[in-house]
Parts: sequence; C-alpha cells; structure tokens
Amino acid sequence: MSLTSIDANDIAALARGCAVLGTGGGGDVRTGSLAAVRAIREHGPVPLTRLADLPEDALVVPLSGIGAPTVSHEMIHGEDEPRRIVEEIERIFGRPPSAIMSSEIGGANGVAPVAWAAQLGVPLLDADGMGRAFPEVQMVSMYVAGLPADLVVMSDVAGNVVTIRPVDGLWSERLARAVCVAAGSHALMADYVLTAGRARGAVIEGTVTRALEIGRATQGAADPLGALQDRLGAARLITGKLTDVERRTTGGFVRGTATIEGTGDDRGRRLALELQNENLVATEEGRTLAMVPDLITVVDTETAAAVQTEGLRYGQRVTVLAWPCDPLWRTPKGLETAGPAAFGYDLDYVPVEELMARA
Amino acid sequence: MSLTSIDANDIAALARGCAVLGTGGGGDVRTGSLAAVRAIREHGPVPLTRLADLPEDALVVPLSGIGAPTVSHEMIHGEDEPRRIVEEIERIFGRPPSAIMSSEIGGANGVAPVAWAAQLGVPLLDADGMGRAFPEVQMVSMYVAGLPADLVVMSDVAGNVVTIRPVDGLWSERLARAVCVAAGSHALMADYVLTAGRARGAVIEGTVTRALEIGRATQGAADPLGALQDRLGAARLITGKLTDVERRTTGGFVRGTATIEGTGDDRGRRLALELQNENLVATEEGRTLAMVPDLITVVDTETAAAVQTEGLRYGQRVTVLAWPCDPLWRTPKGLETAGPAAFGYDLDYVPVEELMARA
Repeated sequence: MSLTSIDANDIAALARGCAVLGTGGGGDVRTGSLAAVRAIREHGPVPLTRLADLPEDALVVPLSGIGAPTVSHEMIHGEDEPRRIVEEIERIFGRPPSAIMSSEIGGANGVAPVAWAAQLGVPLLDADGMGRAFPEVQMVSMYVAGLPADLVVMSDVAGNVVTIRPVDGLWSERLARAVCVAAGSHALMADYVLTAGRARGAVIEGTVTRALEIGRATQGAADPLGALQDRLGAARLITGKLTDVERRTTGGFVRGTATIEGTGDDRGRRLALELQNENLVATEEGRTLAMVPDLITVVDTETAAAVQTEGLRYGQRVTVLAWPCDPLWRTPKGLETAGPAAFGYDLDYVPVEELMARA
Repeated sequence: MSLTSIDANDIAALARGCAVLGTGGGGDVRTGSLAAVRAIREHGPVPLTRLADLPEDALVVPLSGIGAPTVSHEMIHGEDEPRRIVEEIERIFGRPPSAIMSSEIGGANGVAPVAWAAQLGVPLLDADGMGRAFPEVQMVSMYVAGLPADLVVMSDVAGNVVTIRPVDGLWSERLARAVCVAAGSHALMADYVLTAGRARGAVIEGTVTRALEIGRATQGAADPLGALQDRLGAARLITGKLTDVERRTTGGFVRGTATIEGTGDDRGRRLALELQNENLVATEEGRTLAMVPDLITVVDTETAAAVQTEGLRYGQRVTVLAWPCDPLWRTPKGLETAGPAAFGYDLDYVPVEELMARA
C-alpha cells in the first residue's frame, strides 16, 4: 500500500495503530485524533513524504508533546504552539521546514503531528524517532545514531518559547523536563531538528504507514486479536483478567505494576507488568517473558484495541502481546539508551523471540 | 569623580559598595571580587561607559547570576558562561554587544560583571536594572519601564545555553527559575537585552560609580559608620546585637527573620527584620520603620561593612541602616512590581523618610 496523503477518514486507523505502538504510554490518542480530524477538515489532507523524496538539505522538524500523560489528558492542544516553534526554527536556520516528523509514533504523539502538519501546511515525514513510545527525551533514534542533541525548541499553551542548546542528550532531557513542569506539565517540543541528509539511518522510516496498517488490520476483522497478532508478528504472553493495578505519578512520570491472571487456556498463570509510562517488563513467577526495548502492549481481548497505562482497570479482559523492536534499539548504544538497565532494571537484555523460544 | 575604567585596585571598594546596596542579598561579593581582580590582571582594566556615550542602536546586554545565594557561595564561576551567552546574542541579533550591564548592582551581581566585561573585552555600562538587589527576575527597571521581557538567554556551568522568549515578566521568572534549579541552582542570565536608545529611562544610571563611592567613603575613615550613613543619606534604625536568626532555604530562596536588640542609646529596643534573600521589612513593636523597595542594610557597627543575610550570626554587633530607593521603584508600577505586597506583606508602602519623620 502506498499512501500519498492522510485524510480525515484515515485518522481512526492511524490512532488505533499508534495506540498499539504506544505500549501503554505516549498519551491518549483521542485528543490528538480530534485535533487531526478538525485540522484536516479546515486545511485539507496532509501530504505524506519519504526521506527519498526530499533534497539533502531539506529541513525536517521532529515534534512531540512532552508531559505527564495523566496531565496531557486534560490539556487542550493549541494551534499556536507548532506555529511558534516553526517561527523560531526559521529564525535560527534561515529557512522554513520541508517536513515535520513525529518524534514518537506510539500514542498521541503519533497522531497529533498530522494536526500540526495540516495547520502549518507542511508535509509529514513517513518516519519517527522511536518506532514505539518512550518516556524520556534522549530515547530517540537520532541520539542512538550519534547525532548531536544541539537544539531543542519548546512552546507551551501560555505562548512561551524556550530554546535549549544542551551539551548532551541527558542535559537535554533534564532541562526540557524542568521547562515542561514549569509550563504546567505539558509542552510541545522540537528536538533534533535535522536535514534530510542527516536523517538517513538516524530515523525509523515507514512508521506512519505501519501504524495505519496496524490500525486497519483490526478494523472490521472477524478475529481482531488474531489479525493484530499476525500483523505485528507478536507473541501472546497471556490472556486473562486484570486483578491488580498500582500506579503513582511522580516527577512527571507514571510508575506502577499491573497483574494479569490467566483465564481459559491460561488459567492458573499470573503475569506481572512493570510500568513507567510504558509497559517495560513482563514477568511470570520470576521469569522474564519480554522486556524493553521490545514492545509490550495490553489489548482488549475482544476488540484488540490497545489499553493505555492510565486506562488499566480492575476486571478488564485483556491480552498481552509482545514483539521485536526496531533493530536500532538492539545495538549496544540502543540498549544503553533504552534497554532494561536504562530504566533501573537489573536485567540483561534478551530479545523477545529468544525468550519465547525458551518457553 | 569621573571614572573611565575600572582597575584591579578599584575592586575592593566596588565590592564593599555593592554589598551595602545588596540589602543583605545578591550573593557573596567575595567570589565575584576574586574573579574580577583575576580577569583584569589577565585582560586589562574594564572601560566604564555611559549611555550618553553610546549610539542609539548599540546593544546593551544586562547580565546577572541567578540562584539561591547559599548555593552560589559554593559555585565556581566559569569564563565560558558569558562567552556562550554573548555568542547566542550575536546569533540572534546579528551583531556583537557594545556594552554589558549589571542587572543588579547589589551584591555579587554588581561586581562579577567587571570580570565578565574584562573576559569579553567589552565595556561595562555605568548603570544597572535595580539600584539595589531583588530576588526575582522580573523585578528590574526595564520591566517597570514597560519594556517587553521578550528574550532571556541563560548559560550554566555544564555549558548548556537556554533561550527563553516569555509572554511576560512573570513567565520569564518562572521559566528561568526552573532552568536554574535544573542546572544545579546557579546560572548566568542575560535578561532584557536592549539598545542604548531603549535603555534611556529604563535603567538606573550611575550606579557602578555610586557603589564605588560608597565603598570608598568607609575605606580608612575614622568613623566608618558615620561616613557610610552620610554618603547614603541613611537613617539609623537601631544599633545593637543580633539575638535571633531564623533562616530556611526553600525553592531557591532564603527566607527568615532576624532580631536585633538595642545596646547603648538603643537599650531596651528590639527590631525585627523580615528577610527573603534581601532585608525587606523592619518593624519595632508592630510599627514599621522601613520597607521594601527602600533599602535596608545590616552593617557591622565597627567597620560599617555590610552583613549579608547568610552571614547573620548570633551575637554580632550591628547597625541597621535604611535609605530611599530610586524614584522609579516608588511609581505605581514600581510598587506593584517590588513593593511590600509583591513579597506577600499586607502593608501600604510609606517612604522611609516619612516613616522616620513620624518617629
């Protein structure tokens, strides 16, 4: 399937796919979806472009909302933030962007860029910086590829614009997070503004199309869960019932643990899911079944719709799926950046397909 | 006296004067003094310039360190921060600064700009944005004069540079403070970068010379306290002994109360001094003797050297002086910005000379 633009009636599938890739985090796709549909109705469909279609020096602006997901729920995304960020980038680089890109295809940040691209009248790049969702600013492919984190531009609802020239990715995260909290725990951010030439090999290509395909796979399917599992190439970790959810929001992050007790064929099993905005580690009786950076998503067993971390409720009938991350995350730098140790887990990374083969 | 440049042997007097104008706050003048002497020895004397000497479009960069004073004590001021800020300003404005200015003549921020000017090879403007010290970013003459707080450039010891385009002065304060705390509670900041044309009437002129004159008045004087009082035109609120000091550092600020019990002619009297980085309100038996924005400084009774908030110690023999602030602070906008209510005191401002006349 080759897409040349995203129309209003593509948004539901895109949102569904982005929610699945969000691995429980990345914010609520609903707000972004409404904004995207509204913006396309007002400004027309959003052209989808590939890196191969752009000249070497074309400017690509990765955009994402940052904040605590339980806060961004309540926030209204303004039209002014992307405009202010692009104005600042034009001022700095002396030319307008040729495309905007989702920094994070998983969750709301995969859908909302469609609205921003429509409002700005700029194409959307069929790529992102994660292939999933991650909670921290430096956890992007551009960082793993060794590009300097030399510029961050942020804008908030109040209209403030903050430009950060950090010495490294960790300072980038620290300062951007502080600005975000001061701005009311939500801000729009352009991180790793780069040329198309530098983007090759430093972004994960085709992920907007992939999210759309994932979303479409389950639409109207007789067996949505089976269709989703096939499309993802995912292992089914457990099918069961949510029996315990422990969550707390601290320092802009949601952390916690969810327990799923097996039903049907899985009766007698019990899966523990460790959360830090995203689903990070799945264990059963001390044995790890899947771990970050591989993707772990909780879906409604009947509809195969992704359940986000903040949507987890006692008694839900769910299935937990896990599948391989982009190969970039399995490199030494990728694992150092977003492997289990980066989240404080004392685990050596083993790919999900190997863990499954051992089971 | 007309100065054309500041030499290494002017620094002691300048530091003494800046400490007096610091009204207890503004950070420790010693660190800035050492840096200024060292920088002048390495780079030569710092030309002192007047607004009248600059062309209309000459760029003036107000610089100051921000942070909790009890933290900045421990920090080493790098040479790189002013250079990085000036580079960013050149990038934004397309031309180099013609002068740097102290944002705050009171305390360390009155002395350290001499070091920065020497390192940068740029003249120092004989002016500042306060005529004293204040704890918050928006409490500057440029804000009172109605100039837009449209640009803040910050740099920290790690080498990060943050540019803020705030919607107003309060957002400027909020975001700059958040960045400062994330950067380890100390950062260098350029705020209200302006042309010489816009600076007229929006900065407090002659304050570097004034600080020098204050410092010189007590050097080698037979009666340092009398000489200082004369030079300042200050009222003596009490002479006595520090009997109680209560201080706490919260959110980057030092707050507290100091009690001075009278000795000699003042025996039987007791003065309470309310502190928030600076000395803000002096009361005796419920009667207010002086209040912000007028200047209240605690000095050593014998040497007339200013005692800073964090230097207050039980048993010290001190005299409390108070004198009128710059007329700009007594305008409605000045009082709204830095009058007693701006610090949470339920007091109507009365000039110190009127309060003294009533006594």
